Amino acid sequence: MQFASDNWAGVAEPVMAALQHANAGLAPAYGGDDLTRAVERRFAEVFDHEVALFMVSTGGAANALALSALSPPWGMVVCHAESHIQMDECGGPEMFTGGAKLLPVPGPSAKLTVESVRAALRGFPERPPHGCPPSVLSLTQATECGTVYTPAELTALGALAREQGLRVHMDGARFANAVATLGCHPAEISWRAGVDVLCFGGTKNGAMAAEAVLFFDPGLARDFAFRRKRAGQLWSKQRFLAAQFEGLLAEDAWLQLAGQANAMARRLAEGLAAIDGVEIVHPCQINEVFVAFPDGVAEALRARGAAFYPWITPCDETGGRTQRLICSFASSADQVDAFLKATADCVAAARKA
Amino acid sequence: MQFASDNWAGVAEPVMAALQHANAGLAPAYGGDDLTRAVERRFAEVFDHEVALFMVSTGGAANALALSALSPPWGMVVCHAESHIQMDECGGPEMFTGGAKLLPVPGPSAKLTVESVRAALRGFPERPPHGCPPSVLSLTQATECGTVYTPAELTALGALAREQGLRVHMDGARFANAVATLGCHPAEISWRAGVDVLCFGGTKNGAMAAEAVLFFDPGLARDFAFRRKRAGQLWSKQRFLAAQFEGLLAEDAWLQLAGQANAMARRLAEGLAAIDGVEIVHPCQINEVFVAFPDGVAEALRARGAAFYPWITPCDETGGRTQRLICSFASSADQVDAFLKATADCVAAARKA
Amino acid sequence: MQFASDNWAGVAEPVMAALQHANAGLAPAYGGDDLTRAVERRFAEVFDHEVALFMVSTGGAANALALSALSPPWGMVVCHAESHIQMDECGGPEMFTGGAKLLPVPGPSAKLTVESVRAALRGFPERPPHGCPPSVLSLTQATECGTVYTPAELTALGALAREQGLRVHMDGARFANAVATLGCHPAEISWRAGVDVLCFGGTKNGAMAAEAVLFFDPGLARDFAFRRKRAGQLWSKQRFLAAQFEGLLAEDAWLQLAGQANAMARRLAEGLAAIDGVEIVHPCQINEVFVAFPDGVAEALRARGAAFYPWITPCDETGGRTQRLICSFASSADQVDAFLKATADCVAAARKA
Amino acid sequence: MQFASDNWAGVAEPVMAALQHANAGLAPAYGGDDLTRAVERRFAEVFDHEVALFMVSTGGAANALALSALSPPWGMVVCHAESHIQMDECGGPEMFTGGAKLLPVPGPSAKLTVESVRAALRGFPERPPHGCPPSVLSLTQATECGTVYTPAELTALGALAREQGLRVHMDGARFANAVATLGCHPAEISWRAGVDVLCFGGTKNGAMAAEAVLFFDPGLARDFAFRRKRAGQLWSKQRFLAAQFEGLLAEDAWLQLAGQANAMARRLAEGLAAIDGVEIVHPCQINEVFVAFPDGVAEALRARGAAFYPWITPCDETGGRTQRLICSFASSADQVDAFLKATADCVAAARKA
Repeated sequence: MQFASDNWAGVAEPVMAALQHANAGLAPAYGGDDLTRAVERRFAEVFDHEVALFMVSTGGAANALALSALSPPWGMVVCHAESHIQMDECGGPEMFTGGAKLLPVPGPSAKLTVESVRAALRGFPERPPHGCPPSVLSLTQATECGTVYTPAELTALGALAREQGLRVHMDGARFANAVATLGCHPAEISWRAGVDVLCFGGTKNGAMAAEAVLFFDPGLARDFAFRRKRAGQLWSKQRFLAAQFEGLLAEDAWLQLAGQANAMARRLAEGLAAIDGVEIVHPCQINEVFVAFPDGVAEALRARGAAFYPWITPCDETGGRTQRLICSFASSADQVDAFLKATADCVAAARKA
Repeated sequence: MQFASDNWAGVAEPVMAALQHANAGLAPAYGGDDLTRAVERRFAEVFDHEVALFMVSTGGAANALALSALSPPWGMVVCHAESHIQMDECGGPEMFTGGAKLLPVPGPSAKLTVESVRAALRGFPERPPHGCPPSVLSLTQATECGTVYTPAELTALGALAREQGLRVHMDGARFANAVATLGCHPAEISWRAGVDVLCFGGTKNGAMAAEAVLFFDPGLARDFAFRRKRAGQLWSKQRFLAAQFEGLLAEDAWLQLAGQANAMARRLAEGLAAIDGVEIVHPCQINEVFVAFPDGVAEALRARGAAFYPWITPCDETGGRTQRLICSFASSADQVDAFLKATADCVAAARKA
Repeated sequence: MQFASDNWAGVAEPVMAALQHANAGLAPAYGGDDLTRAVERRFAEVFDHEVALFMVSTGGAANALALSALSPPWGMVVCHAESHIQMDECGGPEMFTGGAKLLPVPGPSAKLTVESVRAALRGFPERPPHGCPPSVLSLTQATECGTVYTPAELTALGALAREQGLRVHMDGARFANAVATLGCHPAEISWRAGVDVLCFGGTKNGAMAAEAVLFFDPGLARDFAFRRKRAGQLWSKQRFLAAQFEGLLAEDAWLQLAGQANAMARRLAEGLAAIDGVEIVHPCQINEVFVAFPDGVAEALRARGAAFYPWITPCDETGGRTQRLICSFASSADQVDAFLKATADCVAAARKA
Repeated sequence: MQFASDNWAGVAEPVMAALQHANAGLAPAYGGDDLTRAVERRFAEVFDHEVALFMVSTGGAANALALSALSPPWGMVVCHAESHIQMDECGGPEMFTGGAKLLPVPGPSAKLTVESVRAALRGFPERPPHGCPPSVLSLTQATECGTVYTPAELTALGALAREQGLRVHMDGARFANAVATLGCHPAEISWRAGVDVLCFGGTKNGAMAAEAVLFFDPGLARDFAFRRKRAGQLWSKQRFLAAQFEGLLAEDAWLQLAGQANAMARRLAEGLAAIDGVEIVHPCQINEVFVAFPDGVAEALRARGAAFYPWITPCDETGGRTQRLICSFASSADQVDAFLKATADCVAAARKA
């Protein structure tokens, strides 16, 4: 009954196999290997667009470095108030950009809208050199609340960004889950919608530690090799970063793994919704379920060994009652069903008490 | 009819006199001069408390450097959404702190309250090392909307900060105006209320370019000499910073200058309030008047040569109609009355049209 | 005939086995796993001293973050002019420390001495707040020129550091090679000699991507979890960093792997020294051979498929003729002998020409 | 007998007069005033070239900000080992550039040469993204040892910089003294020699606190308004920075003030050279005299009330015996002669002892 995080899962089989396969013989260091080049080509195929690929070990590094390539140190990054870059990176974006300001924008289910972004920009008028000029619109797909932007929503946000002179960054730690849900081509929710740089997540989807920064305009990546190096994110044995993506991208493993995680979350959400008194807080669109239990139930579930975290953010509307449950590629229907049964029991017990 | 800023005024007479007086002979550089020491003692008298004094040329430097002494680079500075450090310093606080995050808190008339700060902290729970731990509560006295915190309000906020383990920074660019309005002892709205570091403004109150960073706990200032130096804020001929404060602090010039500015603003606010259709947006408590004119009147006044800026912020509730009028020590009743007359004329003309 | 870098080797068998073994089931993320704790204990055993362990993916991150914990942003890090932190990290130490200055000290074979450090400090007198106060002595064991410090040399440098109020950082990217050569206890060349923080290298010695920052005084590590996180160096699936060290530290694999690399380099150095006209530039003490070939020989060897890099640094005394050859755990006697034969052939051919 | 620094002098008469004159009435803040524009035009006349002018309060800020406009955070600034930016700014250049590396180059009398710069670059080969790519050549005119570069020397260094793809920064804290000595047109030792940005010093030459960053290519200054603002270096009452330069530049006051300081130093140097046992360490070319006294004489002079500092640097060749004596516009022949007499007395006394 472990639903604490998709990071609690290990390495998916295709990734581990690719790591072992990549371990034959010597290979040039620091990205001079053949596998790195092959993976860059593979990404270009997947996205149907030229890409400049930079691999790093964590999502925190991917996002913060990507932002540093898009914003001057005095720029302002417009993001959702519940976004990972605002809430969970311990100031990494501020550090790597050299001090850019994050402007947190509130809104339901961790989604930005054209209206909310416009309102935020209106309240922070450009008065150079006094206010930080807005430089980047940062979107999270799928969002921190497990929701997804439709291609149309992203296209509208991308158009707004262009109109306002902003670059578009996408935190895609769970991009695979979004594609699996939407059933769209990856291009539709990235470069075709105006995304300049996509941080394509591997780790939460079965990699060991691998995130890909994808520049759709290689011109924007001009300095990125320096940025990645000085951040201590250039692996000397880079073939082992590349191998992880080789494993994920071959035979659409990335979509199958994400699809499995999504399906388990859907099963979980549907089961929970059917239990009287359990409230689903956000629509379950990927591998996450946000839920408010009746009083005492979360504690009772934890006492039975279930693992999940409370979800407290500036936009919470449940008075701190929201819990976050995450499935991964390693989740099984049995585990989900066991949790559902435990929940039903705990709810019943709570009602009696 | 110049009400654009108190920064449009020049240097007040007592300050200019002190500068000339300080220009006799040679003096040790970089703060080794007698005048610097004398001014530090004078500040200690004014505040009835030991202080460690560091003088710099701008409020932006004072605030950003003060914050860097109070927050680690990964810390979070809780401030009002309309505060100068958030809206007007081009990311200086982020740069000087090495990347600390500013958490903008909304609320009416640019004032934080115990409730709004508590709510903001509740929405950003400490989950080390993921979220930035809150490190500083930054208060502005008087506020960006020309309002003042009472000693009781500040004491409550200071107590909250101590309870939460936060240091308290006060942006006192218009501290003199607040003291002049409140008629309290400066200690009551600084160290006695829990303020650790006060940025005591000189420039807006008749200095040429002089702001004082006052540490009430000299232990917090241990590294500050290094911070100021590398920021390029250590004047070699520092006696000329000291002289400006000598001029301001002698014979309570600082309170008289601020009092004059406040009085002119009060006259302005009262006159405007009496004009039908003119709305006073925030209570006029210092030398600033925030006002919403009937349609077309602001433009008509500017066409007649009046100078003032629109006031657009995230917390605006007038639909972008607010204008900010500022008086200074150099403002006169004649100027105010001329503006009031022009306003009445323009309002009347607008009504006819 | 690949002697370009120990980074061209793959993952050693015990490390790959440990990675696979660690891949069973779920585990808490971000270092909450049992394996992380076990590895920390294992390091404490190996070093016979309490340690605070922080694992990251690259040596660049390990060194730069370690320095950031030892030096204020205005401090000065005394290091060798040929050290990795000075020559090879693209300014990472400057970035992560928030701007600390590196003071490069020249000297033969990439080794600092008590005399050269004293001379450097003498030439940069403390005049607070003008000059950067020296804060850290950074030592590299083994050095960039493949030489090692003896325990006595390190003890003397450590004593100098304490006398001067400096913390001691050790870049131990090839620490294992140094221990294997010296045959000493790891403690003798680390905490007993005055080292405060050791960056213990895994990657060059058979890991995939794993470096350990070891604080011998956990008090110095107080803030390090924040520093690592915001740097994007906290792996969510940290058990896979821990597993790499589990594999290396079990049954002294780390010393056997380093010993094999060292032995191959010794064989290479002895063979090269026996070839007329080939000059060994630095004593071969670990897994690196620095050599100056007769004119045209390096090019001829590369034409035959040999891989190695020129070694150009501020302290070069061979007029740019030095080449660096590196062996790894994966090097074999056959490969070495093939290179020696090729060299002898190329030298003979060059002589005829 | 005060020869500690030209910073011990006060404000020269033409500057103080300009400050008072500028104090009439109101003026737009933050550089919107007429005087700022007039001074920019005046600088263009003086240099016979279009300039983009940015005024700040200290040389430390001027240099560090100028470097930040010329170098990326991962770049490397080639400078003399005794330069102010290396020895005296407490790491300001590293901070404002976001972590650029300073590469200190040794050489006599604080002067770089084409040969010494070439050697330094040769020892730090570009291996992107590992080493910091050299980005800026920083020259000091006049140097920290009171020597001057001839136009020919600067032209050769400028050509080397262009050849190597480096921008040229000039620290001109004592630029006026250099022009006064050389008798050349200011253009000859600035833009015509290849200087991209000149930090033109005012403070040491009679200003209160005013340094001018002059971009000869305004395109390089594109972002500089943001950099200056966030650094807390944009004066709200900027007319009082402009006034200082108005005072200095009118009727060549800047050259007369510098000429007076130079003449007094020459008188001092010639007098000291004539005293047996007193050694002039560097040629006296501006307002500074570097001298090694016989044993005990420096102490004896200080005991008589003379003020001057020891001059200890990495390039010192006098075993720490060098003392630095500085004259200013406020120095008089009487003061110099009194010091010469005292020196002669002390030398004679030391000889007897």
